[in-house]
Amino acid sequence: MKGLTFTDRLIEAIKEKKSILCVGLDPQVQYLPPFFFGNPNLSGLEDVARAFLDFNLKIIDAVEPYCVAVKLQMAFYEAYGHYGVWAFEETIRHAKSKGLIVIEDAKRGDGGDTAQAYANGHLGAVDLLFGGKRASFDVDALTIHAWIGESCVNPFIKVAEKHGKGIFVVTKTSFKPNSVIEQLRDKLGLKVWQRLAMFVDEWGQGTEGKYGYRNFGVVMGATYPEDAVEMRKILPNAWFLVPGYGAQGGGADGAVVGVNADGFGCVVNSSRGIIYAYRKDKFYCQPEKFAQAAGQAAKFARDDLNAALKRAKKFNW
Amino acid sequence: MKGLTFTDRLIEAIKEKKSILCVGLDPQVQYLPPFFFGNPNLSGLEDVARAFLDFNLKIIDAVEPYCVAVKLQMAFYEAYGHYGVWAFEETIRHAKSKGLIVIEDAKRGDGGDTAQAYANGHLGAVDLLFGGKRASFDVDALTIHAWIGESCVNPFIKVAEKHGKGIFVVTKTSFKPNSVIEQLRDKLGLKVWQRLAMFVDEWGQGTEGKYGYRNFGVVMGATYPEDAVEMRKILPNAWFLVPGYGAQGGGADGAVVGVNADGFGCVVNSSRGIIYAYRKDKFYCQPEKFAQAAGQAAKFARDDLNAALKRAKKFNW
Repeated sequence: MKGLTFTDRLIEAIKEKKSILCVGLDPQVQYLPPFFFGNPNLSGLEDVARAFLDFNLKIIDAVEPYCVAVKLQMAFYEAYGHYGVWAFEETIRHAKSKGLIVIEDAKRGDGGDTAQAYANGHLGAVDLLFGGKRASFDVDALTIHAWIGESCVNPFIKVAEKHGKGIFVVTKTSFKPNSVIEQLRDKLGLKVWQRLAMFVDEWGQGTEGKYGYRNFGVVMGATYPEDAVEMRKILPNAWFLVPGYGAQGGGADGAVVGVNADGFGCVVNSSRGIIYAYRKDKFYCQPEKFAQAAGQAAKFARDDLNAALKRAKKFNW
Repeated sequence: MKGLTFTDRLIEAIKEKKSILCVGLDPQVQYLPPFFFGNPNLSGLEDVARAFLDFNLKIIDAVEPYCVAVKLQMAFYEAYGHYGVWAFEETIRHAKSKGLIVIEDAKRGDGGDTAQAYANGHLGAVDLLFGGKRASFDVDALTIHAWIGESCVNPFIKVAEKHGKGIFVVTKTSFKPNSVIEQLRDKLGLKVWQRLAMFVDEWGQGTEGKYGYRNFGVVMGATYPEDAVEMRKILPNAWFLVPGYGAQGGGADGAVVGVNADGFGCVVNSSRGIIYAYRKDKFYCQPEKFAQAAGQAAKFARDDLNAALKRAKKFNW
């Protein structure tokens, strides 16, 4: 690996942009401004993929000044088959050209050869026919499910290390009602998500970058701030990818609970609240101005998070 | 939903073919017969995808008489980006044209809108631009991770019900060493995978087909037959998708432990041991005869599993 690894690139981006905001690019037909539909003859999967890409490019250009990263939720792309995955790839390309860090939220999880294939395809490089390798998605970081344990995690860690990438283990999610599996308790009274966090701590040893933070972190939902405190005790120098801020109901003060005193440790995602800001509330406007609304919403979210960091005396970059 | 649902289609296919074998279509460059590579100018991701598809079509034709289903491990396809996903789609099309049941092993797991998008894309239908919906992957059954709980599982169940599809929750995997998460114990001494199985039992209520088996089952690795006994107690009428038979070291007797007295309840997968049978051991041959070797290996596996069922007095179709 040449150059900075994911954790260090993220830290430098936060310092430069004074932002811990990540914008979620989750394209859904039902929320798209209708003029992206084109003409009524466009009725295939490919047409949706083209509309998604067109929408994403304009959103990226509008929000780029205010966020350090974008998070692409793979589900919304792959739902449209290989056309959707093509739009996903082209969106990544554009986000990178704008200097944004790209986080892929795909929650992949398998073991052995299969985990290796996921890691190679999303973070590393894949075998070509006559030798040689080529990067496929080449995102900066990926979310994974660690249910399968070390047989899953080890291939991801090795590929991430080789290519300077980051991993977030789905540990404590933002959904309500919350997961019955995450909430199960062991005989010591610890919840399963806490036990998983302890394994994440063990697995992530040695993945630290030059600023001391790790390339192996967790998903920690903004809607459970009291758990973020506990998570931070278990994982002092791991990154938290924090979904659920904004549309899912998590407030800024709750979203930054996991941030350390140095101002690092969390990257906070908002998807619908930003990219579909034109549809309601504060930034409601004509659909034609959707990108402008998204930019304003991203600026607002950045400032909202920074204000929360200041209140918590963690605005220290 | 018109016609039979997944569980009933599976039962009728088992009765017709006298087989509980599923063949795993896991294409990997390192194992492909070299003549699939074509000429040395083919050095892109697309070329690999075309080689995978060509290989798969010939394998499907060779193994079709001996198996009831094929299982496509999505990781090996999506590693090659949208080209790989295209090969995945075309492989599904061919397998269906041969009357095979198609199981997608993608282990997807997310919540809310995202789970809905995964369910629509893999099992149901997705929104088009001007109203209307279209099926995208349209597989018969999908593996999922249920870490996120009901927020994940409910959308999958609803879509599966509407479209007559099946779901397998990743519960007890085949990898060795086995998952530390699956093995955690609660205060009553139950393991987390057992607790998950109990939730699967609860979530799957009402998904029974006309023969009494459910459309909501589990992944239960062949390499832990003692756990299959326990799993069957918790889930008397759920399907087990059983990986790990063959190349991963699980024997036929172990693989059929979860089968009920009526001969139903398990579909047993073998991937490398069949599709790459030309490379070693019993069916070793010239790479040109790879398909013939795969057919022989599939026949052998079917007979091996049926012999194990007979020994266990469960060959009752």
